[in-house]
Amino acid sequence: MAAELTAHELIARHRPTLDQALEAIRTRAYWSPHPEHPKAYGENGSLDMAAGKAAFDALSGTRLDYGQPGTDGWVDGETSPYGIDLGVSYPHADLDELLPAMKAGMRAWRDAGAETRAVVCLEILKRISDRTMEFAQAVMHTSGQAFMMAFQAGGPHAQDRGMEAVAYAYVEQVRTPDTAEWTKPQGKRDPLALTKQFTPVPRGIALVIGCNTFPTWNGYPGLFASLATGNAVLVKPHPRAVLPLALTVQVARQVLTEAGFDANLVALAAERPGEGIAKTLATRPEIRIIDYTGSTEFGDWLEANARQAQVFTEKAGVNTVLVESTDDYRGMLANLAFSLSLYSGQMCTTPQNLLVPRDGITTDEGPKSFDEVAADLGGAVDKLLGDDARANALLGAIVNPDVKARLEAAAGLGEVALASREIVHPEFPGAVVRTPVIVKLDGAKPDAEAAYMSECFGPVSFAVAVDSADHAADLLRRTVREKGAMTVGAYTTSPEVEEAVREVCLEEAAQLSLNLTGGVYVNQTAAFSDFHGSGGNPAANAALCDGAFVANRFRVVEVRREA
Amino acid sequence: MAAELTAHELIARHRPTLDQALEAIRTRAYWSPHPEHPKAYGENGSLDMAAGKAAFDALSGTRLDYGQPGTDGWVDGETSPYGIDLGVSYPHADLDELLPAMKAGMRAWRDAGAETRAVVCLEILKRISDRTMEFAQAVMHTSGQAFMMAFQAGGPHAQDRGMEAVAYAYVEQVRTPDTAEWTKPQGKRDPLALTKQFTPVPRGIALVIGCNTFPTWNGYPGLFASLATGNAVLVKPHPRAVLPLALTVQVARQVLTEAGFDANLVALAAERPGEGIAKTLATRPEIRIIDYTGSTEFGDWLEANARQAQVFTEKAGVNTVLVESTDDYRGMLANLAFSLSLYSGQMCTTPQNLLVPRDGITTDEGPKSFDEVAADLGGAVDKLLGDDARANALLGAIVNPDVKARLEAAAGLGEVALASREIVHPEFPGAVVRTPVIVKLDGAKPDAEAAYMSECFGPVSFAVAVDSADHAADLLRRTVREKGAMTVGAYTTSPEVEEAVREVCLEEAAQLSLNLTGGVYVNQTAAFSDFHGSGGNPAANAALCDGAFVANRFRVVEVRREA
Repeated sequence: MAAELTAHELIARHRPTLDQALEAIRTRAYWSPHPEHPKAYGENGSLDMAAGKAAFDALSGTRLDYGQPGTDGWVDGETSPYGIDLGVSYPHADLDELLPAMKAGMRAWRDAGAETRAVVCLEILKRISDRTMEFAQAVMHTSGQAFMMAFQAGGPHAQDRGMEAVAYAYVEQVRTPDTAEWTKPQGKRDPLALTKQFTPVPRGIALVIGCNTFPTWNGYPGLFASLATGNAVLVKPHPRAVLPLALTVQVARQVLTEAGFDANLVALAAERPGEGIAKTLATRPEIRIIDYTGSTEFGDWLEANARQAQVFTEKAGVNTVLVESTDDYRGMLANLAFSLSLYSGQMCTTPQNLLVPRDGITTDEGPKSFDEVAADLGGAVDKLLGDDARANALLGAIVNPDVKARLEAAAGLGEVALASREIVHPEFPGAVVRTPVIVKLDGAKPDAEAAYMSECFGPVSFAVAVDSADHAADLLRRTVREKGAMTVGAYTTSPEVEEAVREVCLEEAAQLSLNLTGGVYVNQTAAFSDFHGSGGNPAANAALCDGAFVANRFRVVEVRREA
Repeated sequence: MAAELTAHELIARHRPTLDQALEAIRTRAYWSPHPEHPKAYGENGSLDMAAGKAAFDALSGTRLDYGQPGTDGWVDGETSPYGIDLGVSYPHADLDELLPAMKAGMRAWRDAGAETRAVVCLEILKRISDRTMEFAQAVMHTSGQAFMMAFQAGGPHAQDRGMEAVAYAYVEQVRTPDTAEWTKPQGKRDPLALTKQFTPVPRGIALVIGCNTFPTWNGYPGLFASLATGNAVLVKPHPRAVLPLALTVQVARQVLTEAGFDANLVALAAERPGEGIAKTLATRPEIRIIDYTGSTEFGDWLEANARQAQVFTEKAGVNTVLVESTDDYRGMLANLAFSLSLYSGQMCTTPQNLLVPRDGITTDEGPKSFDEVAADLGGAVDKLLGDDARANALLGAIVNPDVKARLEAAAGLGEVALASREIVHPEFPGAVVRTPVIVKLDGAKPDAEAAYMSECFGPVSFAVAVDSADHAADLLRRTVREKGAMTVGAYTTSPEVEEAVREVCLEEAAQLSLNLTGGVYVNQTAAFSDFHGSGGNPAANAALCDGAFVANRFRVVEVRREA
């Protein structure tokens, strides 16, 4: 059967984009091919907002039947944090049938070479991009993100991270040429001459274990890095966030088929409630790569037990912002207030501990005491979220009852500087919407340490009183070293303090944002330019995205013979 | 204190070489800056053969006192496989004092940047190169290699592998720019603008666990990859092969000091007889990278237990050569005979199992039965090693009593096609010199499997009768998958058989040499062009050298601020 989409056609279509992506990861200047304004969608084959909503609504009551081998039943029951039932059924897999079927197409996929794999991946991303508005709904109704964030982070930003992984995977594979002529002089004798062929070969089947909060954003890097390096990819979504990745698998299978490859190179492993298939999957001998985002406990388990696989984990961390001094007090407060509020603090990058000297800080508005800083930050959050419509648009919904319980318990951990407030969602009354709580703690008191040295995932932050900037730097160091951190922020006008914080971040491998007061936030990173995590502290063993994220997903096999 | 060697001077001296190395790993054409002819040494500051021997002799009775912190005693007792006592004493380290001292210089080494680190490493290699003839003696008298091999493999070839690692480490670190200006359009509003700094940061202290047979060749890639990426490096040599790595540490410390860095960035951890410090060292929290060459048992232990470190292992494997047909029977026999004989088969790349159809093979000299092939190969080995002087120059000495015991036991495993012969070394009567044994086994008999499916390290190979080329390919696949392989060879004139073997190697990630009949051997690889191992089968979890070998030895920390 001839492919509908030839490699030649796909290269013509996507090579310019790939080249731009390669240039972007080299310069790390701003670049994105995926528009983040809703009005950009609706033309050139992409769904506009209404069509995306209609497509999402039409999924309810349907089966996503890909014709996946080994389908031994159907899984449903997904409920939105906004209170609606999604009503979509997904194939449940008999692994003993599915995994061998996934291997069948790997030889052709390997032989296609790095460039063809890259442009097939870019075609998948293009089809996903066209359905961004449908994915936005799916991400919103699984993660609980507000619509605009679900659209941006779950759509263009996730697609950017996927493409970034494709670019890294491509460049890594072509560092070694396909062939080489090797001629070694032998003095007066004839030279030794060999012809060498080098082939990037996949490791096997890669497993992506998705998370609840950012199913596409955190899922795409591993998925595309593994696929672009020749592996088959089995996607196991979080049981509460199946739809966005199930749609992704659907698109990938369609494109693979059209390009003449085996659809089973990408497959879904949905699980029945309570089935807990991740451990079984992760230790199958066929699984040679695992990408995981989630709890430290399970991430550590994977690293210790899935020894047959390359394991890439993003786990929990405790993110710190050091507040020592600023020449833009209002800008700092507004910037932090946004960071604490966005998606109700349910980002792995949201700051948790705000370290503030107990004797206060210096600002462009004069000295501010510890209590004033805490109160003013609370005021800034109140101001940001004072209007319920705006609050709903920023906060989204609490993703699960555990987060709600943690939030409610947080008020008992210390003096509350800002109480959490319940907000009604006019469209989705079932949604649990809450503003952040800010609790004051004393960093010198051992009994407070249990609170601020643990990750309290959700809309909870601690204003921690510290003795000095040195104390803050020490506490930052200990926090990153022992608990890990996806992000560190600092506000200071002192070159010495800046240097001390920078040195801690360099030594403990944490990504640092300094003095952000405008429209860039410590909890946001941009693909092709910012690294997400460092891979060098306990919060994650890999960074998105760098050479190490892709280099061990394939191996190079050399075949040499006399020339 | 001003550095005697400035970065500027070192860059001027070595940047052209670095650029050539970068070009070589990109094209993989032949290149080496390290001459492999003895007569090339003795000029431009390098020691000639006599001076190297004199320098080696002068070491006897001395202490290699680097002034290493935490030296709590001295270790000696190293004995050459050629029967002489080396008589050199090495510092024994108190780790609680040495490891903190090694960390002290890491900040300056990190801040020096990738290029300066690369040229300092190249200066170390240059100094080692100048002393190649001294290292040749040290390698000969620890590994048991014959002089010419100790000189070539332990000298220029090891230096090539070290430089290759420096080149990979350098290019990996400069893939991300030092700084970037990031400007994101915001429609009618002002663009968002950030200044970003990117710094490669080391993981910590790297541990190199050396091996007995190739202390420099197998030690240099990890040592230089870790050092060039900003880490401090602690070298723990094999207790029977201390001197070559101890001299290496000496040179590294001298160059680091002259270049204005802390000598303790490279240190030695020699151990007392039976002390077995590797496990203690490998699980110290300060150790974040481990490079190991040696047994599968200990390599597996490291991978399972040194969880705080990136672990790179080269372990045991079972190397196979498939002999199906040839159009150069004499060339094939001569080539294989050399491969089996070189260093008494004590290379991790030496073929062990020669799979030959029981019904014989076709050749340019007509059909040859299984027994004829085994006998003719034995004859070729006999011819190669018929002259004792030549035999001594090729075989070297048996490295330790375990190898001798295995060799002696091998004759009992099956019908002997070629018996091992004892050879007297005229200069070193204490040396145990043995020619290889070839034992015939039936690949269809389950009781033979225990022999050919285990690594029998040393001058032992098995001519295994197989039913067909398909059977051979199946056995090859099973061997690589279950036991691992550093090398695979095949002789065939059949495109179908070649394709079948190639496919096995691609699927099981093994490096394949096809139809070698001239002066290149399956057990030899050339740095900058050939990969040593694949990192994709059980024999090794890393290849020398590729991006994956270096990419996770450092992390990149980003510091961003508003522009």
